[in-house]
Amino acid sequence: MTGRRVGADALRDVARGAAILGTGGGGNPTIGRLLAERAIREHGPVELVPLGEVPDDALAADAGGMGAPTVGVEKLASGDEHVHAFRALEGHLGRRLTHVVCGEVGGSNSLLPFVVAAHLGRPLVDADAMGRAFPELQMSIPAIYGVRATPLALADQQGNTVVLTAADNRWTERIARAITIEMGCTAALSSYVMDGRQLRQTMVAGTLSLCQELGQLVVASRARHQDACQRVADRLGGHRLFDGRVVDVGRRTETGFARGHAALDGLDRWSGSRLRVDFQNEHLVAVRDGEVVAAVPDLIIILDRETAEPITTEELRYGSRVTVIGAPCDPRWRSAGGLELVGPRVFGYDFDYVPVEALAGGTAR
Amino acid sequence: MTGRRVGADALRDVARGAAILGTGGGGNPTIGRLLAERAIREHGPVELVPLGEVPDDALAADAGGMGAPTVGVEKLASGDEHVHAFRALEGHLGRRLTHVVCGEVGGSNSLLPFVVAAHLGRPLVDADAMGRAFPELQMSIPAIYGVRATPLALADQQGNTVVLTAADNRWTERIARAITIEMGCTAALSSYVMDGRQLRQTMVAGTLSLCQELGQLVVASRARHQDACQRVADRLGGHRLFDGRVVDVGRRTETGFARGHAALDGLDRWSGSRLRVDFQNEHLVAVRDGEVVAAVPDLIIILDRETAEPITTEELRYGSRVTVIGAPCDPRWRSAGGLELVGPRVFGYDFDYVPVEALAGGTAR
Repeated sequence: MTGRRVGADALRDVARGAAILGTGGGGNPTIGRLLAERAIREHGPVELVPLGEVPDDALAADAGGMGAPTVGVEKLASGDEHVHAFRALEGHLGRRLTHVVCGEVGGSNSLLPFVVAAHLGRPLVDADAMGRAFPELQMSIPAIYGVRATPLALADQQGNTVVLTAADNRWTERIARAITIEMGCTAALSSYVMDGRQLRQTMVAGTLSLCQELGQLVVASRARHQDACQRVADRLGGHRLFDGRVVDVGRRTETGFARGHAALDGLDRWSGSRLRVDFQNEHLVAVRDGEVVAAVPDLIIILDRETAEPITTEELRYGSRVTVIGAPCDPRWRSAGGLELVGPRVFGYDFDYVPVEALAGGTAR
Repeated sequence: MTGRRVGADALRDVARGAAILGTGGGGNPTIGRLLAERAIREHGPVELVPLGEVPDDALAADAGGMGAPTVGVEKLASGDEHVHAFRALEGHLGRRLTHVVCGEVGGSNSLLPFVVAAHLGRPLVDADAMGRAFPELQMSIPAIYGVRATPLALADQQGNTVVLTAADNRWTERIARAITIEMGCTAALSSYVMDGRQLRQTMVAGTLSLCQELGQLVVASRARHQDACQRVADRLGGHRLFDGRVVDVGRRTETGFARGHAALDGLDRWSGSRLRVDFQNEHLVAVRDGEVVAAVPDLIIILDRETAEPITTEELRYGSRVTVIGAPCDPRWRSAGGLELVGPRVFGYDFDYVPVEALAGGTAR
């Protein structure tokens, strides 16, 4: 065993940190945590393997969920469907998958790989494919390197399983989304089959440990009466973009996504200012008094202003007092190939990406 | 070789007969015929095996298309996707499929099995699963006997392939329909994997030969200046329900189906009467002057009044002069289990099934 063992007691911190890096999306972290805790209690702790130690001949796939977080909090997963999806992919490949991978750090999608890893006794790679969460399947760093999302397996609680092989990642997204909607707007997913060499080239190293560290940081800072929100921003090399009160939330579940926006009235030094955050499962763009202060692929993180607990899009409530942080994304997202997948124009915005440190650097640190 | 060899020259008759038994649906027969003719020219004739001679240890699946015929006539299939779907199912099973089967006699779905059989050099069973065509996947005689539609494979021309394993046949229909819509409203399909014993128990014997015979009958009757429509009705033990002129056609492509109705004004002995035929890909119900004269699962067949050429729902035109025939379905459809799958109430009608010979017997022979 080359990795460290992660038990159920670590998952609360992982979940908290995952929801921070999830930038509002990735599914509800509490539900994923409860499923992972149960799986580890029943099957034992999970071996978390550093990305650099994954052997070349490893064969891995991610395990997680697809769909609208707004539905995920009402139609609870059982965890079995995630095991079914992973196994269906193995059946299709005709080969054993040696490692479980996290597709995106973010909400439940950081915890569900623990469920599958515990159930099947497979090591989990300490990494993810985004360094954050994104709403669509083709939005992953491996895709920048030409890795296909398919073969891909989807499974639901009714006992339905689908294995998809698609012409390209955009077709994968279209067809898998349609299946997910039919399965009831959420589905268990396994995809992006890679060997060890591909994993090491394309994944973001250490992000599951980073989730745990961020979770611990929030708790420790609160205990020491420190400004936990600022500590999170600092740890991520990010910028405090806004403190404010939620005065409007528009949220709808359409085409299988939670889409909408939140409007915030400023507090303290932002008094008199207004910030608007748009989201499609994840936060996409933050506009302060008419000016873009952060945009995809950079991370836009909303925390409870007092507790620094991360707030996902489906939990945003009128009246909440929040802190908004902008943090730089993995540098590979800032390449031409990365911005083609996840830049602002991909989400329908008519402006080019500018790094958050250039936008917010002068004003907010 | 136990079966007879079917060459390209036979396909015109098969297509004509298939469109008769297809009761308006099953996809456009001309397109299926052109694909089958090309496949046989390139790969040689198809061995058509009598149902009774299929060995117990055979392993077979159907090959055909799913979707809206209204789209199928515009977005032409290439035939390759049908081979891909069949092979994807083999890959999933990890076993060679020994025989190709026809899922439904009706339009292109009677011809597409010839495409796959010719391409792959596999024998085709002279039978189908309905003795007609029906619009949804769970509507098959094997399903009455508890045979599952899944594992099922769908493929499209873009290179996308899906293998589905579903909890039951209704879930199969829901999920496969959603995938088909996303693939562009038509897809190639392979499903209903069965061994030889299951095939012999559940399939309708000889229906591909019957298609060919009906096609020949129409041509021969015309050549002899006989009433070809009446000859078709007689061969099927059916009833001439109406002669009339199409005065209204409502047709829309929705939820992946061609849905609508046609209204006919009577000619000759039906002068002053009106007949309405409703369809969902296939003709569902015929109502003459307010009285049901034929309903699913019995066959409602619309032929050109002069030539006896079958008219599919997407070809119905204002002004066409047609003959409407009602013919009895396979007796297994009339069982409680059969009517649960395809009786009038399944399609939203508020009346029970009455056999066409009881409804029409006194009036029209």
